[in-house]
Amino acid sequence: MYDMTITLKLDSEKCLYEQIYEHIRQEIWEGKLLTGERLPSTRSLAEYLQVARSTVDYAYAQLQSEGYIEARPYKGYFVCPMEELLHLEQEKRGKTTAEYPVQTQSETKDSTPRMAQCIYDFSPHGIDMSAFPFSVWKRITKNVLSDGSNELFTKGEAQGDSELRRTISRYLHSSRGVNCRPEQIIIGAGNDYLLMLLEKILGRHVGTAMENPTYMRTYRIFQSFAYPVTIVPSDDSGMQVTALEKTTAKVAYVMPSHQYPLGTVMPIGRRRELLKWADEEADRYLIEDDYDSEFRYRGKPIPSLQSIDAYGKVIYIGTFSKAIAPAIRVSYMVLPEKLLERYRKDCYFYSCTVSRIDQRILNEFIRDGYFERHLNKMRKIYRAKHDLLLEELAPFEKKFSITGENGGLHILLHARNEKTERELIDQAAARNVRVYGISDSCIEETSDYRGTVLLGFGAMKDAEIKEGIQRLKEAWL
Amino acid sequence: MYDMTITLKLDSEKCLYEQIYEHIRQEIWEGKLLTGERLPSTRSLAEYLQVARSTVDYAYAQLQSEGYIEARPYKGYFVCPMEELLHLEQEKRGKTTAEYPVQTQSETKDSTPRMAQCIYDFSPHGIDMSAFPFSVWKRITKNVLSDGSNELFTKGEAQGDSELRRTISRYLHSSRGVNCRPEQIIIGAGNDYLLMLLEKILGRHVGTAMENPTYMRTYRIFQSFAYPVTIVPSDDSGMQVTALEKTTAKVAYVMPSHQYPLGTVMPIGRRRELLKWADEEADRYLIEDDYDSEFRYRGKPIPSLQSIDAYGKVIYIGTFSKAIAPAIRVSYMVLPEKLLERYRKDCYFYSCTVSRIDQRILNEFIRDGYFERHLNKMRKIYRAKHDLLLEELAPFEKKFSITGENGGLHILLHARNEKTERELIDQAAARNVRVYGISDSCIEETSDYRGTVLLGFGAMKDAEIKEGIQRLKEAWL
Repeated sequence: MYDMTITLKLDSEKCLYEQIYEHIRQEIWEGKLLTGERLPSTRSLAEYLQVARSTVDYAYAQLQSEGYIEARPYKGYFVCPMEELLHLEQEKRGKTTAEYPVQTQSETKDSTPRMAQCIYDFSPHGIDMSAFPFSVWKRITKNVLSDGSNELFTKGEAQGDSELRRTISRYLHSSRGVNCRPEQIIIGAGNDYLLMLLEKILGRHVGTAMENPTYMRTYRIFQSFAYPVTIVPSDDSGMQVTALEKTTAKVAYVMPSHQYPLGTVMPIGRRRELLKWADEEADRYLIEDDYDSEFRYRGKPIPSLQSIDAYGKVIYIGTFSKAIAPAIRVSYMVLPEKLLERYRKDCYFYSCTVSRIDQRILNEFIRDGYFERHLNKMRKIYRAKHDLLLEELAPFEKKFSITGENGGLHILLHARNEKTERELIDQAAARNVRVYGISDSCIEETSDYRGTVLLGFGAMKDAEIKEGIQRLKEAWL
Repeated sequence: MYDMTITLKLDSEKCLYEQIYEHIRQEIWEGKLLTGERLPSTRSLAEYLQVARSTVDYAYAQLQSEGYIEARPYKGYFVCPMEELLHLEQEKRGKTTAEYPVQTQSETKDSTPRMAQCIYDFSPHGIDMSAFPFSVWKRITKNVLSDGSNELFTKGEAQGDSELRRTISRYLHSSRGVNCRPEQIIIGAGNDYLLMLLEKILGRHVGTAMENPTYMRTYRIFQSFAYPVTIVPSDDSGMQVTALEKTTAKVAYVMPSHQYPLGTVMPIGRRRELLKWADEEADRYLIEDDYDSEFRYRGKPIPSLQSIDAYGKVIYIGTFSKAIAPAIRVSYMVLPEKLLERYRKDCYFYSCTVSRIDQRILNEFIRDGYFERHLNKMRKIYRAKHDLLLEELAPFEKKFSITGENGGLHILLHARNEKTERELIDQAAARNVRVYGISDSCIEETSDYRGTVLLGFGAMKDAEIKEGIQRLKEAWL
């Protein structure tokens, strides 16, 4: 075992777990920790460094999630073999295996540093788990399992447990203005599954309208449904309804509260136009993906499109993956009455995909106010990061414009000069900073966003934001 | 609150929770407990009756799952309104809302007792949860949440956590002879979801062959895929391959270890024929639904069809819902290499539908031997029930033949005389016994099984089996 001495600075801006994480990562990159070498157990390292065990846990978890180390059952943590690190990087490069479109990175020349090496990663999909109330979650879990009779282990309702649906409907009403009865809610294990179920409700070969750029995961899912996707141009207000009217699309997929990746907020006028479009034909619908509207930092919170839908035209989809944790595989879909009827007729036999135990835990987490408290805390944390990022970006103003701020977990930078997206990414990577091209979110190439990159801040620490932006300054200005 | 005095007999054959359950159910039916009335809390009733709280929990859970009472958050347990009981019964009757095909019950005349009243319910889908090691499950959950760092709360691998896939592959190899690498396994939240994913892998409009009768839930799912289903005749060995060859089907759905509902075990010769059929064309596949092969009471355990598949033609699907608990929403699918490639190409972006926490708990439950111990215990319990049922059915021999015994959780009774399925069901219901017609499992009517009913024993207590069969004797003999 490697005898790991780390000099921890208590007065550092970096918290302890971060210092441990960075130390080990550095050792791996410098070859001081060798492939296959076993790391000290979290317990022994914590004792050795005189820190809480959870501090080491966090550091190891971070290293593991980034592919530097791996956990082997009964054995401990080991430094990943170099091949795997390379493999990891190839995965991040190749379109076929990247889980998120944004992890895709077009070819980098051999001279540019490998992406896996980029220490300052402005991923727009990163989220901050450090403030998650693990202990509350554990306590609720324990109580649910102790209180609960074996009824918990029996098969539940196909749409999800009615108590959780009631809780979600109350939450959606108060926070998002969504008007629905608990009966309209379907709980499912993730948005992907709910979209699969929606395909069974809407039927086959449904023409779908999407913006470009958009959320590519949904585009890929529509493709796997063989839904013909029409790209509808958008402007500052979002999808252009005049253009939508010229298509044969029956369903329009929109993110009115916070378009991904542009960050556009759809104004009320455009929303009304969209609803009017949908109302013109019986089988037209709008899918409202309200994926991160919880995080709004300036101005009034924006009610959902569903909240002003008088015609029963909006299929509202939301998730707890962003607001709680990606591992919480719980999403929900609110069906308009007409589609609910179809669901009950055609899809009643599909069992719920979330275990009752998990539903109960989540229900108590929301019902007892922990969710709201957590959201408030995260909003504050993310706002501080957002503000810091904008502050640090002030010197960029001459050469870049910024959009998509004031909400969500990323902003967009547009080069005012002739720099291309590729150049921006490569120049950043040369300084160990990873930024994300907008073209990763484009169904097809567009000339609208030549030199545009996304900077996510969700998972970044303050010091990382500062140092990352400093390096971008050197790279781009 | 209702002051509930129940005279519990300690020397009764019925266990305490059963006596409480039956007492309350009786009170509700006799109108002594009125609609909307609040039941004592489990704690206070347990104190009052001087029994363990879990005993009352079990009784209430049973009443709740049968729709007699409902739990209201913060308030307690209440007697369901009569309308709901009627509704429940209608749901059980009507095809459109019944979750299981077997809950379907064709019209019963007003004179015959309502199904919800049937005290002796030989449901083929009932399982016995009384022996489930709740405390072990709770302990593992607690440990997983305490040990686990926040890595557990991050997004996991799309196919499911590799540790669980390794554990499942080892289990499948040793218990079912399944040959697969962990990479071939996809973990999903239930069979329905895995079939949905399989649709995306196999493609659209795939002609599918099924037996008649079969598992109707799968048939409905294929219908919702718009997969053209061809019924292929079967004999004592299962699906007839000579008939299958005459169809244009590309995929055959079979349950070789224990056909539902017939209980047929497919002999090796027929299995080979099936594999040969599949091998004749590149895009032919067999779906092996190995839903309850864990429960085999006589003879050698039957290895899976997948275990003799040399050509990579078998898609093997299994679940933990039967063997552990219906609430454990974890199923798995083993893909042949060729389909695995397609999955990786076309479906890599679908996230896993099971939370990492649940995957970890299940992994430890299996890895540490609890699953095997539980299976052995359940096999013993179910075998005892199975043997008792057959013993009690001895007097039926003259007028009925029995098939489908020695495995699974139900047997089939065939009337040797002219009695129809309808008559058998109605006569049983008139004596408060619920049996299930084979026609509930038939895609289309068939003259092969005129007077055939299913008798499930999984959820029945010994005394219930005895009394139920005694009543059937009065009804039918």
